[in-house]
Formats: sequence, structure tokens, C-alpha cells
Amino acid sequence: MSLREGAFGNATNLVCRECGTEVPLGPDYACPECFGPLEVAYAFPAITREEIEAGPANIWRYKALLPVPDDIEQSPNTEPGYTRLLEANNLAKALGLSKVWVKDDSTNPTNSFKDRVVACALSAARELDAKVFACPSTGNLANAVAAAGARAGIRTVVFIPSNLEQPKQVNSAIFTDSLIAVDGNYDDVNKLAQEIAAEEEGWAFVNVNVRPFYAEGSKTLGYEIAEQLGWRLPDQIVIPVASGSQLTKVDKAFQELIKLGLVEEKPYRIFGAQATGCNPVSTAFKAGVDAIRPVKPDTIAKSLAIGNPADGIYVLDIARRTAGAVEEVTDDEIRDGIVLLARTEGIFTETAGGTTVAVTKKLAEAGVLDPSLETVVINTGHGLKTLDAVSDKVGPRATIKASYAAFEAANIS
Amino acid sequence: MSLREGAFGNATNLVCRECGTEVPLGPDYACPECFGPLEVAYAFPAITREEIEAGPANIWRYKALLPVPDDIEQSPNTEPGYTRLLEANNLAKALGLSKVWVKDDSTNPTNSFKDRVVACALSAARELDAKVFACPSTGNLANAVAAAGARAGIRTVVFIPSNLEQPKQVNSAIFTDSLIAVDGNYDDVNKLAQEIAAEEEGWAFVNVNVRPFYAEGSKTLGYEIAEQLGWRLPDQIVIPVASGSQLTKVDKAFQELIKLGLVEEKPYRIFGAQATGCNPVSTAFKAGVDAIRPVKPDTIAKSLAIGNPADGIYVLDIARRTAGAVEEVTDDEIRDGIVLLARTEGIFTETAGGTTVAVTKKLAEAGVLDPSLETVVINTGHGLKTLDAVSDKVGPRATIKASYAAFEAANIS
Ligand SMILES: Cc1ncc(COP(=O)(O)O)c(C=O)c1O
Ligand SMILES: Cc1ncc(COP(=O)(O)O)c(C=O)c1O
Ligand SMILES: [Zn+2]
Ligand SMILES: [Zn+2]
Repeated sequence: MSLREGAFGNATNLVCRECGTEVPLGPDYACPECFGPLEVAYAFPAITREEIEAGPANIWRYKALLPVPDDIEQSPNTEPGYTRLLEANNLAKALGLSKVWVKDDSTNPTNSFKDRVVACALSAARELDAKVFACPSTGNLANAVAAAGARAGIRTVVFIPSNLEQPKQVNSAIFTDSLIAVDGNYDDVNKLAQEIAAEEEGWAFVNVNVRPFYAEGSKTLGYEIAEQLGWRLPDQIVIPVASGSQLTKVDKAFQELIKLGLVEEKPYRIFGAQATGCNPVSTAFKAGVDAIRPVKPDTIAKSLAIGNPADGIYVLDIARRTAGAVEEVTDDEIRDGIVLLARTEGIFTETAGGTTVAVTKKLAEAGVLDPSLETVVINTGHGLKTLDAVSDKVGPRATIKASYAAFEAANIS
Repeated sequence: MSLREGAFGNATNLVCRECGTEVPLGPDYACPECFGPLEVAYAFPAITREEIEAGPANIWRYKALLPVPDDIEQSPNTEPGYTRLLEANNLAKALGLSKVWVKDDSTNPTNSFKDRVVACALSAARELDAKVFACPSTGNLANAVAAAGARAGIRTVVFIPSNLEQPKQVNSAIFTDSLIAVDGNYDDVNKLAQEIAAEEEGWAFVNVNVRPFYAEGSKTLGYEIAEQLGWRLPDQIVIPVASGSQLTKVDKAFQELIKLGLVEEKPYRIFGAQATGCNPVSTAFKAGVDAIRPVKPDTIAKSLAIGNPADGIYVLDIARRTAGAVEEVTDDEIRDGIVLLARTEGIFTETAGGTTVAVTKKLAEAGVLDPSLETVVINTGHGLKTLDAVSDKVGPRATIKASYAAFEAANIS
């Protein structure tokens, strides 16, 4: 296969995170020497704040920092990103923290941060001339792949655990005729996808064989937070952890911004959030060990239910290096986290965001988060996709007849 | 009550749409002379494209054109707007039109265009010192009011028909402890709200007693479309009609942009979309009459189910003046419209958007829309809120065991 000139922008090659072996840009994800994960390396030119600010109100304003061609805006895509960073004073007060911001990715095109990573994977699939755009998914990724593929006119096949929440199923099937339910948990689905990727020609599995390109999309969360804070890094940031990719890439984004001189260097602390029902990284963090022991997930936070997280060990590294932590919360705490964010800031998050908010609360109460420092909380998904988690917690206060007398009798005013 | 200086920005007074009577800015909505609807009038200074472009990526970039104070960004609000305008080449092809754009308001903070109008109503409620922020709603408005009120720290009470879709109920109750279900249809709920507004002190019903301020928020859809097209007006635009407010205000926005010299004057055609199960404006348009006869709604497009539309007669005026039309489609066509938009452009719309897409299709097929001209379709809401409309139309293609053999047997590749 020959790549067109500039197919991957300023990216130069893939490099092994473990042993540093370099590999040409292509549909590879495991190091030929040590099987370690490959990631994208770049030779960045000088990039200014002004150039970025002159770009569109979506992730392509950062295209020079991503493995995408310079004409990326011309190819049909969902145009994700540049979501709201909301000053969350009510939430801060409720948590006893001086300053909190919520980065709200629930307003992305398919209502999760996955639209960012999928947009980068789609570009790679296009440049690599893939015939099928595919993924194993805990739900949100399937939504994003199916939607992006429909718009781009490329065939999609998306694989999900068969017990997935109904809204997430419909939100994929509406876009594709090839939503495939698999009996098993996400880790089973993921294993199947790896087999298919190895056997079939021309299938781009976004989070398997084009994973290095896909993962770079999460850097845009880090770029946006820094830009929206006025080109500076936050003190503390809380991020949900499933495979661990997002957390890892937010850290990479901050490091790149420092190296490029786009923000001033300063200490920042990164915190990971998991559910007690799927806590392999939190368990390893607390035990002070380097290896992650896989678990069988059992939690309402299905989007975070990855029992064998590919990037878990890098999450541990980053939490430890930045004086952060990885913490976990129960399903009841997750439900309370969803309601807390809604009632304080008017944002309806899914179980993953409930996990992140609840972990933030737990860390604040334990004094692990420094209350005098500024904290950013990433909301990665939308509550309409996990309605059942709260549908018996909230509801109408009263059902009345359509008369003023009935209104008065209900004692609402 | 005394207003603070600049409480309503460049707005000068309210004026009756029917007889031109002028009334001071305040919580009034009906003309004291003729009971006609009041709307906001302005004395605009010179406003440049550059000033607007330097503003934030939300509706406040147009604050000089809205009845809000100059410091509006400082008050907690949901920061809606500046949503995607997507070039929709697949949809255009499917419809036999040369060029189509979709303005996608499903990615607003509570996933409908209602966040725009509510942000303006919230500002008015604040400046008028209201104690309660309230609405009668077909669903989306309740979501937007409840969320905006939570974030602003003002008490909310939202009234809905008791048979409303469950996702829209949860998506209000998650934000407020005062979601009130009313036995009856929207027109009954609306009548009740008018009574409460007349009886209770300090209640700001966004679409009743602060309706003039509320309605101005829909102008931002028109501003954004023009700006995102490169500061020019579209040739043809298709807009859903419930009360008719949105359609009316998009026209007002285009007229203002022309008068301010922000776009060149040119002919544009405005089309209204209704469901056959709630078609009072479409019926009057086709009959060639000026008066609207109320109907009892019976359609899956519940967000459009207003049988007695307050601004229906202005919709008729505008459709006729601009050489547009008002058309209607059946519930089955609405469902097909939802799937068509999803499969062509990766956008999951609710029944209101299904209505708009289906009407666009019908008008294209009938040759009413000029295929050589450019058409903008407004998607006003999100499919996750009306899941039941399509949940038996789409679903998994297969459920398989987690093995490559099972994948092969299912004949997916
Ligand atoms: C809503 C949501 N948040 C967070 C995550 C975690 O992502 P990662 O696998 O990058 O850790 C996921 C993954 O599916 C998700 O769907
Ligand atoms: C999704 C959606 N689209 C369109 C409309 C129509 O709005 P209007 O009452 O301004 O005509 C509504 C009204 O509730 C709505 O919820
Ligand atoms: Zn290696
Ligand atoms: Zn009058």
C-alpha cells in the first residue's frame, strides 16, 4: 500500500511505548519486537495559539497536532469537539472545593467523547483505504463509529455485548444495518474483534488495528481544556478509566503543549475514576503494584466495564508521576453522582460521568484533592443513554388535573 | 419594579405585532389595546461581522442583537448555540437536491433548540427578579428550563402533558424536583400555565409572560446559519412548526441581518413542517385562508403537538410572502425521515426532525423546492428522546457467540 503525501500530517512514524522500536505509519498496533503498544510520534513545526484560534470550532483546529492530513475538513466527518468548559460554582460548593470546571463532552455529535477518537480513526481508515469501519464497543464507541461511517459513506460493522443498554443499541442501529450483538462481556467482544482484524482484509477496527491513530483523538480534550482556560494547564483533573486510553492521552496533550510553548510548564495532578464493579486499575493503584489483574465487570457503568484495560499500566504511571490517584465508587454513589451534577449544573451525564463526579466527591471528602486548587472534571457521555440508572430515582412530583384548583391543591407554589 | 441600566441590551420597548402599540420592557405579552402578541423592538448600533466573530462559540456572540445585558456571559447559563451546520451531500443526493445543509441543534446542552430561547428567557427572568422559572411544555422546553434553572440556582416548576415520552420526563426530573404532569394535551397545559401566570406573583413562565424575550432566542438559529454559510442567506429553508415561534424568528433574524448590512439582501423561501396528526397551519396554508382552526393533536411528533399555535398566522404570512409553503407528513413518513437522516448524515433526530426531513423530501419530490437552489434543513431535537418512534424499526442484525466461527457463520463480512 502506498500512502499519499501528508496522509498523517506531522506524524512521522509509530513507536513502541515499551522498547522504543520505530515502525512506519500503517495499520499496526503491536510492536514487532516486544508486542508493546505502538503510538504515534511527530515532528511538529512551530505552532502558534493564533493559528489554532483561527481554526474551526471543532477538533480540526488542532489538526497540526493530530495524525491527519491538512485537508481533513474537506472529508465528510461528524465535526466533533470544542465542547463547553463550564465554570461549575454550584458543584464546587457542594464538593467543598474552591474552583471546579466541567468539560462537557455529552454534547458531541453522538453524545460522548468517542466522536473525537473516531474522527481520527476515520481519517486513518480513509488514508489506509479500508473497506469496513468497525469496532468492539461498550456502547458509546459503537454509536460514534456507526454515525461517522454513515456520514462518510463507508460500510460499518459494530460489535457490542448483547446485554447493552437499549438506548445505546438503538443509537447504533439507527445509523448502520450491521450492529452485531455478541453474547459475552466487552473483553469477549474485544477478543473476537482482534481475531476478525487478523483474519479479514481491509477491516479498520478503530480501537484495534488503527488504535494508535484513534487514541490520538483524546488529546483534543486536553488541548481544549488548556485553550478554554486561557492557554494554561489545570491544577487537578479527574478522568474516567475504561481501557485507560483517554487519561493517558490527556497527559500526552499537556506534555505536548508544554514542549511547544503553547502553555507554561507547571505541576498538574491526574486522577482516574473507576466503578467498584470494574476496578482493576484502582485496585492496582491502591495496592502499590505495577501489574494489573483483570476482573469480571459487574457495574451499572457499562461504558467503563473493561475488565482487562489495555492502557491500565500507563494510567498507574501517570497517576503516580503527577501525584494523582485512581479511586473507585459503588453503583449507588454513581447514581448519586448523576443527580448531583444535574441538580447543580444542569448537565445530564451517563453512568461514566456519574462515576467521575462521585470519585471527585470521594477524593474531595478524603482530602486527596487539594480544595484550594482548581479542579477539572471531564463528563464523557450523556444520561439519555443510561436512563434506567436513574429512572426510579427521579420523576414527576405530582400528576394533576388541568385546572388552577388542582394546581392550588397540589401545594406547588 | 425598576430595571437596571442596560438590562435588555439594545432593546427599547415591546411592540404589538397587530396594531403597533408600544409598551415598556417588562413581563408583558399581550397588547393592552388589542390583545395582539407583543414582540421586542430595538435600536441597534452599528454591528460588524468582526465583532460577532470575536465573541464566544455560543449564542452570546450575537448578544448585541438580543434583549440581554452586555455582561450576560457572567451570569451562569447553559451556553447554548453555535451548533454544527453540516454540508449534507448524502441527504441531498437522496432527495434529488443539488445542495443541502443540516443545521443540527440536537447537540445543544439539553439536546434541542429550546436551550436558545430559554437562555434569553432566563436573562429576562433574572432582570425582572422572578422567583420561579416555569413553563408549559411539549417536552423539550421542560428539559431546557429545568437544566438552565438548576445551573442558575433559580427554582423551576415545569408542566408537561402526563402522556409524554419517558426520556423527556426523566430528562426534566433529573434537574428539578418540580416536574408536574398534567392530565390533558399541551393546549390544556398551556391554558393552565396562563392561569397560574395571572394569579401567582413572581412566576416567569418562559413561553407565556416572558414570551417576547424568550422568542428572540430563536433568532440565533438564523444568525448562525447566515454566519456559517459565510455571511449570506440560504435560498430555501425548512423549519418545523409547533407554536410557529421559531419559524417566525428565523425570518426576523434574516431581515435584521439585511438591515444591518451584515448580509446582502436576496430572496429566500421559508417552508414550515407539520405532522398530519397536528396540522392546523398546513391546513390553513393549503386552504388559502388567513385564520387557523385549532385541532386536537394525535401524532408521534409530540414536541410539535400544539393544536392552537400562537404564531400560526405569522407562519402563514411568511410562507406566502417568501414563496414558501407549509406541508405535512404522516407518522410513518416521520419515522422514515428519522432513519433517512441517520443513514445519510449520521445524525439521530427526534420526531420533530423526522417531520422536517420528511417534509423536505415531500416538497422535493413534488417539485415545490427548487432542486437547483441550496436548501437548509433545521434539526431541532434529539432521537434519544423519542426512542420508541424507531425502536422497532432498527436493531441488531444478528446476535452471535463470541467466536470467529460464529462470526463467519453469520455471513457479515
Ligand atoms: C462515556 C465514556 N467515558 C469514558 C470511557 C473510557 O475510555 P477509555 O477506554 O479511553 O479509558 C468510555 C469508554 O468506552 C466511555 O464510553
Ligand atoms: C424539537 C422541537 N422542534 C420544533 C419545535 C417547534 O417550536 P415552535 O413552537 O417555536 O414552533 C419544538 C417545540 O416544542 C420542539 O420541541
Ligand atoms: Zn517494543
Ligand atoms: Zn395591539
